[in-house]
Amino acid sequence: MKKVALICTKCKKTFPIDQLYLRCDVCGEPVEVEKVTKGKINKNDILNQTILERYADFFPFTEIDKSISLHEGFTPLISSPELASESNIKNLFLKNEAQNPTWSFKDRGTLTGIQHAISLGYERIGVLSTGNMAASLAAYGKRAGLKTFILVSSSIPSEKLNPIAIYNPILIKVDVDYGTLYYNSLKIGKQHKIYFINSDAAFRIEGYKTISYEICEQLHFDAPDYVVFPTSSGGGIRGFIKGFEEFRLCGLIDKMPKIISVQAIGCAPIYKAYISNAEVVSRVKNPNTIAHAIENPYPPSGNALLRKIRELGGTVVAVTDEEITQAQSQLLKNGIFAQPAAATPLAAVTKLSRENFFNENDTVVCTVTSSGFKDTSVFDRLDLEILESKSEDLSDLIRSRL
Amino acid sequence: MKKVALICTKCKKTFPIDQLYLRCDVCGEPVEVEKVTKGKINKNDILNQTILERYADFFPFTEIDKSISLHEGFTPLISSPELASESNIKNLFLKNEAQNPTWSFKDRGTLTGIQHAISLGYERIGVLSTGNMAASLAAYGKRAGLKTFILVSSSIPSEKLNPIAIYNPILIKVDVDYGTLYYNSLKIGKQHKIYFINSDAAFRIEGYKTISYEICEQLHFDAPDYVVFPTSSGGGIRGFIKGFEEFRLCGLIDKMPKIISVQAIGCAPIYKAYISNAEVVSRVKNPNTIAHAIENPYPPSGNALLRKIRELGGTVVAVTDEEITQAQSQLLKNGIFAQPAAATPLAAVTKLSRENFFNENDTVVCTVTSSGFKDTSVFDRLDLEILESKSEDLSDLIRSRL
Repeated sequence: MKKVALICTKCKKTFPIDQLYLRCDVCGEPVEVEKVTKGKINKNDILNQTILERYADFFPFTEIDKSISLHEGFTPLISSPELASESNIKNLFLKNEAQNPTWSFKDRGTLTGIQHAISLGYERIGVLSTGNMAASLAAYGKRAGLKTFILVSSSIPSEKLNPIAIYNPILIKVDVDYGTLYYNSLKIGKQHKIYFINSDAAFRIEGYKTISYEICEQLHFDAPDYVVFPTSSGGGIRGFIKGFEEFRLCGLIDKMPKIISVQAIGCAPIYKAYISNAEVVSRVKNPNTIAHAIENPYPPSGNALLRKIRELGGTVVAVTDEEITQAQSQLLKNGIFAQPAAATPLAAVTKLSRENFFNENDTVVCTVTSSGFKDTSVFDRLDLEILESKSEDLSDLIRSRL
Repeated sequence: MKKVALICTKCKKTFPIDQLYLRCDVCGEPVEVEKVTKGKINKNDILNQTILERYADFFPFTEIDKSISLHEGFTPLISSPELASESNIKNLFLKNEAQNPTWSFKDRGTLTGIQHAISLGYERIGVLSTGNMAASLAAYGKRAGLKTFILVSSSIPSEKLNPIAIYNPILIKVDVDYGTLYYNSLKIGKQHKIYFINSDAAFRIEGYKTISYEICEQLHFDAPDYVVFPTSSGGGIRGFIKGFEEFRLCGLIDKMPKIISVQAIGCAPIYKAYISNAEVVSRVKNPNTIAHAIENPYPPSGNALLRKIRELGGTVVAVTDEEITQAQSQLLKNGIFAQPAAATPLAAVTKLSRENFFNENDTVVCTVTSSGFKDTSVFDRLDLEILESKSEDLSDLIRSRL
């Protein structure tokens, strides 16, 4: 590892990077890898390189194991002039993370987390998650030959676990809520030498920052005015922000984009704390939204994110299930099938544009965090039309729909 | 359009490229775009460019509409030393097409087909398909703003149509078998000015050839010894072959790889014709395999493929459902969740290696044509383990599985 530090996001205490610290031992808040202030992009052999190679200067690793990669990242930035026009802004881009190896942005953080685990000599990794992150860790853990523990709350129906179980991890349903399980996992990890690469682990966040690096490259280093990210634990968006901050510090972009964090109104602890000027998030009782992938009632990086958004400017928005379904339909018209959580950024842009939040010259990037196949409840929510015809009537039916 | 011709794959009759010819009007066999013999790769702005831009010299288009693209292609070539070792070959690569915009290789051909339809002034497109190709055309058709007709046989259960219907095409179940429907669609297309971009349309095949272009680039223009492709209508593999032929003609690679076409034994008309030295394929009655995506009982490009494989050398292999399930498991160990059809190339390599078909210095590329989420029947076929624990027993359970 390079000689950089881990730093507490609140009290700024530093920790050595070549040991495992998942949270600050003084204030209990999450830690992060010291920000990079100097670096060049390695543009060599892009069709084969990994994000760890392309952005090697921006990671603390001195050695990387290329074989653990499934070629995550390098996802498209899709322009939608129609959506831009509907929101009365200049440009609207969709960063489509559904084209990752396990079809969500989690793969980026899984790669960097596993690289750190390997660098530290760990042979066991773990995570608690019900969905995208668990499937990602199970896939990469199997590929890397690491013993992989996945903890889920017993409230989850078994069929939802199939996309995780196929990779054959040690998958355990535990009869306790996620808040308790998160802190239990940290203890159990220490006890059994398992590196829990949970939602807001510092080295998971290192992977997420590459989404922003790519956006900067794709926009030819002209940073967008706004970037919009769905928010659950707060880990994903912390990485997203860190990426822009580092490229700014390195002089690769001239300005920071403003950050828009989006939650579902049925589970919006960060939004509630933000609008009430609270310093810490409070646990949401009875979360209820169709956007299950961001349904975290007590986000472990909630306070850290509040501090960051207040420091940098930006806002937190909450959207309804109806607005999410509507955004899913708008994405489908652009050829993109996103899961409900992944449609929340577009829902937020639509909502904010109605409130005249944006300027007509603004460029806005929405991250589409994962594939619609991860949650197909939309099949029941949209009115899908399927016609039937006898062979001899087909030509007439088609004529009637030309 | 550039001044090149469409050529019948059998009788070599030529047709103008700026009109729609889906099959030869003399011998009824499929046509293809004249092969490219000169061209350079455009290496500009790869993070934003489309396959039509990167390989512009290799397509007959003089103008392209970038807005129809969802950034298809540019998929990873994943090395698996473990799988190579198990098959006693030097290198085994997996070309992972499951990272395309609608999670299958079909997107490449949909893009080029739609580009041709637009170049010819068509405002309506269509396809008959039950799965990947229909979802792809529905997504791209919606994005391009073209009226999109999807024809399916009424034998298909409606829930299988949901992933197509969400893009809101004109989706029609017709009470007739696919063989009849294929030829009906050609007539209906003429009648109503609908460009049917069916499985082996010449301009769909143009898109598929980019898989091979990318493989050549990713292997630094050192062509593999064997490339393996699942085979249904024969359209996909014809494109795959054409890509290597063109790069060979252009002097970009020094040799042609040998082609291995794979079918499921429960629906293997091309395999049967190949091993019995027949010139034409015969219709399979009662097809029955778990690999539904390649279950075409009467492949419209079957004869063309037979001619091509006999011309170039190569072979046709059929694999059982058990071999396919086994290959799906092997892919999962590499972190890749493929649908049954997409696992047939690896199943074929395993089978052929047991017969000492390969040399220990061989480099073999298997195409993983689409995502496991497209057909989740494997959830029932694999023995998936899900443990349960009380919170206080969790540490002991984990200790027992370290």
